[in-house]
Parts: sequence; structure tokens; C-alpha cells
Amino acid sequence: MSVAGVGEFGLIDRVTARLSYGSTVLLGPGDDGALVAAPDARVVASTDVLVEGRHFRRDWSGARDVGHRAAAANLADIAAMGATPTALLVALCIPADLPIEWAEELAAGLAAEAATVGASVVGGDMSGSPTLTIAVTALGDLAGRTPVVRSGARPGDVVALAGRTGYAAAGLTVLSRGFRTPRLLVEAYRRPEVPYPAGPQAAGLGATAMIDVSDGLLADLGHVARASGVGVDVRRDAFEVPRQMRDAAQALGVDPYTWLLAGGEDHALAATFPPEVTLPEQWRPIGRVVAGAGVTVDGEPYQGVTGWDHFR
Amino acid sequence: MSVAGVGEFGLIDRVTARLSYGSTVLLGPGDDGALVAAPDARVVASTDVLVEGRHFRRDWSGARDVGHRAAAANLADIAAMGATPTALLVALCIPADLPIEWAEELAAGLAAEAATVGASVVGGDMSGSPTLTIAVTALGDLAGRTPVVRSGARPGDVVALAGRTGYAAAGLTVLSRGFRTPRLLVEAYRRPEVPYPAGPQAAGLGATAMIDVSDGLLADLGHVARASGVGVDVRRDAFEVPRQMRDAAQALGVDPYTWLLAGGEDHALAATFPPEVTLPEQWRPIGRVVAGAGVTVDGEPYQGVTGWDHFR
Repeated sequence: MSVAGVGEFGLIDRVTARLSYGSTVLLGPGDDGALVAAPDARVVASTDVLVEGRHFRRDWSGARDVGHRAAAANLADIAAMGATPTALLVALCIPADLPIEWAEELAAGLAAEAATVGASVVGGDMSGSPTLTIAVTALGDLAGRTPVVRSGARPGDVVALAGRTGYAAAGLTVLSRGFRTPRLLVEAYRRPEVPYPAGPQAAGLGATAMIDVSDGLLADLGHVARASGVGVDVRRDAFEVPRQMRDAAQALGVDPYTWLLAGGEDHALAATFPPEVTLPEQWRPIGRVVAGAGVTVDGEPYQGVTGWDHFR
Repeated sequence: MSVAGVGEFGLIDRVTARLSYGSTVLLGPGDDGALVAAPDARVVASTDVLVEGRHFRRDWSGARDVGHRAAAANLADIAAMGATPTALLVALCIPADLPIEWAEELAAGLAAEAATVGASVVGGDMSGSPTLTIAVTALGDLAGRTPVVRSGARPGDVVALAGRTGYAAAGLTVLSRGFRTPRLLVEAYRRPEVPYPAGPQAAGLGATAMIDVSDGLLADLGHVARASGVGVDVRRDAFEVPRQMRDAAQALGVDPYTWLLAGGEDHALAATFPPEVTLPEQWRPIGRVVAGAGVTVDGEPYQGVTGWDHFR
């Protein structure tokens, strides 16, 4: 049955029936607004939107995958501020012929990804639209920590990375060339593995700047460099090309470093730390903050594509 | 110039340049997340989405009007919980050929409406899309008040209304028939006048249930009746047909009570109060909560259209 068949309120009932609520949810869906605990007396909030054909394709990702990815993109933003996610709100715009199951599975994916960090889907809105669109807002709590912004990097700081880069971009290239394997890469594109706890951990360690790697590592470090008024130099030898990525790169005729350095959507976290901080295992040093401007690789401007602009 | 001409980051810069921030904003746009004060240690959150062709038309409303209305729809939800709005986040999906000025004016409208209640636009996301879509999330603070939900109405309670109904629906009918006047009605459709302070006021007075009238008064009271397990009876003589509405109804061959009782999008607030509460001037009694189920008008089922389903 399509969503037009059950109507707006029928669909909302069917989708919210899939949800469960963590301890931060004081009032869930079904009223004019949700009520979420904000024990820190400040709330971190971030919004990300996914548009079909631009951020996902239904033939490349299942509904549940899209739910995981939509949630991950937002939850990672909360983590990148040094906060723990508490809640998601979801605006869903759907073509009338969308199968109900697709919307239900999407909700299940959103809820499952949120549950991995103890957060819940607490509300949202639905509308018909010719374009399938998913706008998610995430909320989070800092538990007294200082938020880690993009503008605090200082020359001499160590640049470190938690999580992986290039996997999602490699998976996307694989799919866009008509292949379905290697599974590791395709699955990484469909459901990013985000190192959420590394965000609050970095805040606790005194990270001077942090960002969610969504546009591509070099592009996102560029945002940090610009906001902080510094330069960033990344060491290429800090990145090892995993076997499956190397094989796929060879088969597809791609430089795997384009994936590793410029591929987005794995939602790794990149942060800068004062040099005296002892980095835990999750945080792998990949470069240095330097005086100047812009991002270099081994001291040289990077020659490849560096990131993604959603209008170009 | 179109949005494609300046690119995603250029457009974000131009739009955020229009914004200013109230005292609840601890960190505004430009980072992975915003940081908003939540002095109550709980945060009310609500999301509403507007899709071009379904919720607005660019030939019927200016960009600034659409911004006002998108903000109002969300801010009213916060007020309907008994809270004071603090912040908006906006996901904007725009066709590449949209003039930049349209996006800038939209942001100005969103910010101006938020400013009327001391709230600010603190963040968002932008993407290209074939369908112009605006998803807004509003946050609010209860200042220690108990949230007013839909499920607390009890038989014997007084049903009261703050704000007006039927104006936006009348304005929409006027526009859809190709007219531009009466201005009062058309302007009411373009920019709803929401009685925001009446929300926290009702919470303070001990309202047992409250809802934002967005689908239509009878439909929204139906949500309250269903959630509370009660019936609601509305008195038709509690509604006076304003002169311009009467004239327009006559000219267009419409029963003006269809607008008053079933027209949505004015974002009035409807609430139920224990009978002993002395209602202030802003809250006009319009009916009674009764034992039973459903919504009646003068004790009888209403024969007209009662509301709006976004998929039908």
C-alpha cells in the first residue's frame, strides 16, 4: 500500500509505532512538541537534510540504510561539538506513491542508529512532495563540557582523526559504476560507522577544534583552518590504503587517496589537540596545525578534488 | 543571480549575514551545531515542513511572507506546549535556479518572525532539490511550567480560543480564485498573527490541554478529544463573522463558517481550562468538554469539511 492509501495521520501512527524512547525523552511524538531532558541547561542542536537523487538513491540503499545514514549525519554533528546526542526530530517529505513499508523502514533505521548512542526519535512532521526529502534535527547534551568549535585550532596543535575516511566515497563510486561489491565499501556507504563517543572524549581531553568529516577530510579541515585563522598540514603516510579499497581503486582506475583525503560521508571526527595531550587509541594523529592558511598534504597543495558543494 | 551561481557555502554566508542572535543563543550558525540556552533543563522541540505547491506558492506569497509563515507554524507549536520559543533551525532545499534574493528574503522573514518572541535562527542546512522545501525545527523553554499536552481535557472543562480562525483559509480561497483582496484576509494567509504569549499564559492558568490550530479548529479539537478520551462541543454563536470575511464569502459563494470552524493555518491556540479558572481577555470561551467522543457544533455533528490531510 502507498502512503496516499493510509493518509497522513495513519502513516504517522504506523511510523511512531516503531519507535521506543530512552530516558532523555520526557514527552515523545503525538503532541505539538516533544520534551527532551537538557540536564546541562544548554542544548546542542544541528540540522541536516537528505534529498533523493542527491544524497541517496533508492536503488543503491534500502530504506533502513537511508534512515541509519540520515541519523548518523546529524548525530555526528552533535558528537563533533563534544556532546552526547539525546533526540532526533524528522521532517519527511514523500511522494504519494511511496510504499508505506519504505517509510516504516526508514523510521526503523533512524531509531536504530539513534539508539546506538541512547538517543530517540521524539517528533517530526510529514508532508507529501514530489521529491523524497528527509530533514533531521539532532539535539545533544554537553554534560558541563565546553563545546568544541571549529575556530580554536592553534599552530603547533596535533591534527587527529577518529573513525575512517574514504570508505563511503569508495562505496559510492563502486555503486555508481554499477557494481555491488566489495561489500565492505558498499556497506560503509550505506551505513556509516561513526565514532560517536570520540566526540565527548575529545572535548574532555581539551581538543581545541573539532569537525565532523562530511564533505571530505581536506575540505572539512579547510573549514577548521579558515575558522581558526591557521593552516593545516596532513601527512599522507598517516593513511594506509585498506586492501579492499586498493583493489577497488585499481579495478576502477581511481587514486585511492582521493577517497581517503577527499571522500565525504563516513562521518569520522577530526580534531586538533594541544601537543602535550596524550591521545587515546581512538584518535590517530594525521597532521599538524601550522601558521598560515589553507590545507596542505605533506607541505604541498593537494591536486585532486577536495570536497563537495551541494549546488555545483 | 541564482543560488547555483554562488554555491552552497556562498549562499550560507549570504543568508547568515542577515541574522542576529538573542540572549538564548550561546553559539550561532557556522559550526557543526548551535548551542542554545535551556534554563529549564528540559527543551521543547517541534518540526514542521513546508513544500512549495502544497503549503505555499511563490506567486501567492513573497519570500519574506513564506519565512514568516514557516517560522510561525513552528513557534506556535512551542507556544501550544506552554513554552517560550528560543531558537529555530532551518533545512532549506532549493532549486538551482532560485534567485539568491528569494533565499535571503526567506531568511529575513524567518528571523523577523522569530524575533517577535525573542527567538533566533541558530542553524540549518541547505541542499539543492527540484522541490523548494523548508523544514523548520523550533526549540523552546518551559521556565518550570508543566507542559500542556493534548490528553488532559476533562468533561466540564471550558474550551477557549486565543487568536483568530478562518482568516488564513479565507485568504487562501481568495487567492485561489484569482483575487488579491480583501487585503486583510490575503495578508492573514501570508503572515499569520499568532498569539504566542497566550501559550505560556494558559499553562500558568492551569490549562488541562492545548493545541495549535493548524489543520482547522474542529480537526484540531478532534485531536484533543481523541487524546483525552472526551468529546468537545463548540458553540457556533461564539464566532462572529467579520465584515470582510462575510463579504468575501458572499462574493465567492462560500459558507464563512467553513473558514471559521475548519480553516487551518492561522495558528490560533485552542485550550481547555477547568471551569473555575477566570479566563483573561485573550482567551475567548467557545465551547465545552463533554463525556463521549468526537467534536460537535451546538450538539450536532458538523456537516462540512473539517480539516486537512496532507496526503489526500
